[in-house]
Amino acid sequence: MKFSRLLLIFAGFAASHAHAQDETIKHDAEFYILQAQHAEQWARDDAAVDKALAGFREGNGGNPPNIVSVLIDDMGFGDMGIPELNAVRGYETPNINVFSDQAMRMVRMYTEPSCTPTRVAQMTGRLPVRMGMGDTTVDIAGFGLPGEEVTLAEVLKEAGYATSHVGKWHMGDIAESWAMNQGFDYAQHAVHQQGQLTIFNDDAIREQVSVAIRDYDDKYTLDGWFRPDSAAMMTVIEGETGGPIREIRMEAGERWNAAKYDEMNQAFQDKTLAELERLAMQQQPFFLQYWPMIPLDNTRAGRDGPKSANGGLYVDKMQLLDQWLGELFARIDELGLAENTVVVVMGDNGHFTKYAPQSGFTPLIYAGGKGDTTEGGVRVDAFIRWPGMIEADGLLNSIIHVSDLYTTLSRFAGAEQYIPTDRLVDGVDQSAALLFADESKGRRDHVIIYSVAKPEAIVKDQLKLKLPGPGENAIVAKFFDLYRDTREEYSVSTEVGAWGGQEFVRILGRHMARKEKFPDTQPAFGVPYEGVENIRPETQQAVEAFLIKRASSQQ
Amino acid sequence: MKFSRLLLIFAGFAASHAHAQDETIKHDAEFYILQAQHAEQWARDDAAVDKALAGFREGNGGNPPNIVSVLIDDMGFGDMGIPELNAVRGYETPNINVFSDQAMRMVRMYTEPSCTPTRVAQMTGRLPVRMGMGDTTVDIAGFGLPGEEVTLAEVLKEAGYATSHVGKWHMGDIAESWAMNQGFDYAQHAVHQQGQLTIFNDDAIREQVSVAIRDYDDKYTLDGWFRPDSAAMMTVIEGETGGPIREIRMEAGERWNAAKYDEMNQAFQDKTLAELERLAMQQQPFFLQYWPMIPLDNTRAGRDGPKSANGGLYVDKMQLLDQWLGELFARIDELGLAENTVVVVMGDNGHFTKYAPQSGFTPLIYAGGKGDTTEGGVRVDAFIRWPGMIEADGLLNSIIHVSDLYTTLSRFAGAEQYIPTDRLVDGVDQSAALLFADESKGRRDHVIIYSVAKPEAIVKDQLKLKLPGPGENAIVAKFFDLYRDTREEYSVSTEVGAWGGQEFVRILGRHMARKEKFPDTQPAFGVPYEGVENIRPETQQAVEAFLIKRASSQQ
Repeated sequence: MKFSRLLLIFAGFAASHAHAQDETIKHDAEFYILQAQHAEQWARDDAAVDKALAGFREGNGGNPPNIVSVLIDDMGFGDMGIPELNAVRGYETPNINVFSDQAMRMVRMYTEPSCTPTRVAQMTGRLPVRMGMGDTTVDIAGFGLPGEEVTLAEVLKEAGYATSHVGKWHMGDIAESWAMNQGFDYAQHAVHQQGQLTIFNDDAIREQVSVAIRDYDDKYTLDGWFRPDSAAMMTVIEGETGGPIREIRMEAGERWNAAKYDEMNQAFQDKTLAELERLAMQQQPFFLQYWPMIPLDNTRAGRDGPKSANGGLYVDKMQLLDQWLGELFARIDELGLAENTVVVVMGDNGHFTKYAPQSGFTPLIYAGGKGDTTEGGVRVDAFIRWPGMIEADGLLNSIIHVSDLYTTLSRFAGAEQYIPTDRLVDGVDQSAALLFADESKGRRDHVIIYSVAKPEAIVKDQLKLKLPGPGENAIVAKFFDLYRDTREEYSVSTEVGAWGGQEFVRILGRHMARKEKFPDTQPAFGVPYEGVENIRPETQQAVEAFLIKRASSQQ
Repeated sequence: MKFSRLLLIFAGFAASHAHAQDETIKHDAEFYILQAQHAEQWARDDAAVDKALAGFREGNGGNPPNIVSVLIDDMGFGDMGIPELNAVRGYETPNINVFSDQAMRMVRMYTEPSCTPTRVAQMTGRLPVRMGMGDTTVDIAGFGLPGEEVTLAEVLKEAGYATSHVGKWHMGDIAESWAMNQGFDYAQHAVHQQGQLTIFNDDAIREQVSVAIRDYDDKYTLDGWFRPDSAAMMTVIEGETGGPIREIRMEAGERWNAAKYDEMNQAFQDKTLAELERLAMQQQPFFLQYWPMIPLDNTRAGRDGPKSANGGLYVDKMQLLDQWLGELFARIDELGLAENTVVVVMGDNGHFTKYAPQSGFTPLIYAGGKGDTTEGGVRVDAFIRWPGMIEADGLLNSIIHVSDLYTTLSRFAGAEQYIPTDRLVDGVDQSAALLFADESKGRRDHVIIYSVAKPEAIVKDQLKLKLPGPGENAIVAKFFDLYRDTREEYSVSTEVGAWGGQEFVRILGRHMARKEKFPDTQPAFGVPYEGVENIRPETQQAVEAFLIKRASSQQ
């Protein structure tokens, strides 16, 4: 394209942004750089996407597709869908592997480095730092995802979807953050995460998983509130939008243990299948999220189950999860939903290396795991299946960020007009790349990787810069070629690194400058568990202790 | 099985070994431990294998299968046959991937840690340390594989096979070691390896690949014989058994360069196809080895070629090799050979990490590369295709060592009676596991991994012990679970490690004790290149310099 023509397009973009209340989605800076180069192609692609989606709806009684999201904890890249690598690890996931043959693998799917931020990004289409949700808490914390966020469930609900969520949630322990208050008609989910349920519990203490948390003589301990007790924290809640919310897995005085963890997981599985059947009966399209808690598990106590050659705690449970997902896929088939349902199966971040190798999972392809901003922390197995619409057994090697699911699934649902335009949305629309299996149609060539609230690395194309810290010179920052060096061990030569250092710091600069118009905000703060109608006395006590701890710095 | 019965079998085994001249293959100690536990099953399996092979020969005009061996340099595990990992690396090898779908992947194929020893193990069925061939030389060395070794080619020739070898050889620079003198009716191969041809050459020197070898002002240099010159070393030789041997790629006074490397590789490819056609015309079964020199390459000088997204020197050449192997597979089809030919495609050892990341290949799954005794040095992609006889798109996760190809391919060829019984053979017969795609039928559960002449690690089942050095206590030696910890980073707990340390040291003890009966010997020594009829003057000079260097310690 001629430069003058390019300038004209950019002028048009600038003009459209001069209007205070324009209705286009507001993106981060890099988007507009790509748009300036590809606007004409994108317009043609958008028309083709509209036509493809209209064609689908025509054959589906006027309805857009159902959407099922399965988000699995702490799986590294290569754990799912590659039988050769299953063999390397000594386990078998035949159902997931068959599913992967029916789906497209999003090879360069980037998540956030940890559970909470990844789930926030999928739910809001935004980097979790934008509302202060970049961290992952493992105990009572009194904050969470703000009600002002417009979740994917809310967007889809506007477009007429029935919505349901089962399993993990982990975006806060206050009522406004919970799924039934964030756009899901029905939700049954844990309030916290697996640390509470598999590490702080009594069986784990006996197995020495919780060394120094509870398994010791406490005669020198003054602060009884310091160490968490899984039984005092709230476990699983259930409710409908606007209705009562109840804790459903614990009675007053009861202790949490490994058997209860197993029961809870089985109940999530059963509930998911029940919800699928209920939703399938309705006329409207549905959005069902099943976010399992396993494969995470940390005890052998009192339980049998599938055994892998590997024998690791998580690996054995991965085989169980594979059975369960096999049941889910089969039920989708039996209910006649396979053809009109988009199914996304993916990991939420890399391996929890802190529990390697007893988990059985250590990083396989990339370096690092959960919590790291190396590729091992943020690259996951990710599959999307939509028979007849998305290429089966395909590979898409364009960069996709988990926030893109928000925009893209909204587009598939014909709900993109309900995406808010008053705030910055990081997700871009990847419909064209996915529907046409065309890597040149991706709309993202970079990700900015945060650790909690600090940007630590930027990927653009195959290049990755570890961002220099204060006082570090960008021209000698660590700079990697990810195709050639998957483990980020060999920083590329100084000359290229100098250019890269400079250019990536400019990307960061534009990203930070964009925050002047759309500043980061805070999470919602509140009283933990408030609004649950059957709160247990021990839970109430733990909340009171928490409130005193929170107020202690205000004395 | 009852213990008394087990003892009886073992007594029988001991008795059979009491005969001085029994005609059974002599194995290393661990074999007899497994045999004592599985002899009855193995006898049943052997009968089934005989029946399957007889059935094949019946349908093939009485002939056993043709055998084609493609052995590729310095490829890490996961480089071939897994499209998802090709995408991770940014390159495409469609032909190899299709081949892998037709073949069985030997997931736990172990090689030796470097080119020469792996090739020796495949050719002789023996650990290279047994005849002092555990090291890899890159210059004139005056020694090589002894003529007394009975190569796979010699075994197959006894059984009526026509034999041919094209490409790399790298088992010595003396005539008795060369392929045409080691059982191949015809051979065309490089005498040395790719260091000579891609690093010491003039283009590489200009590109600063050979820094400090030749690209410097030599005014302070006294020893003109110290640094190698690729042009003085012998390049490619050709000949038939018993006939003249000629160097075919260099004229006197000519210099070696990148263009000549390309021509040589193309000529190997062309010759392989020509040999395939010639051999296909004959009545007898054939054994053809094509051992390419690429993907190794170290300059961009003066050349075009396929470009990958990765762009690495080896990766781009891997795409070229994929084209070439595609031509080979297509020619096998066109000649009607697909159904009656066993095709083995595999790597010879892990990545040459010294050239990462400019090569484009860095270790992907396992830690380490060529020269290392970590899994990254010795685990390779390995495929065996035999339509109708070996499961297509299969995975076999039993441990196989490259020396097992010697025994197993001999068995497929009905040539096992020509395997020598007067020496120790490390290769075991893996026919039953391969033909029946049954991991329980493997006959090896361990490998002893040498670095040159020193045993450095032992694998048994999924456990790996890094052998303690002198004065190191075995009970605290590094001990790994390879399923759970592919990168050998997390040594397993002390209690297990103590048992492992003790038990693995016993394995080593039995292995060393067995050498009392079958002692290690020396390579053959001789005058380099002697017997080549058109030796160049500069080559003759280099040989004379070498001989003076060799004699210098005898002054």
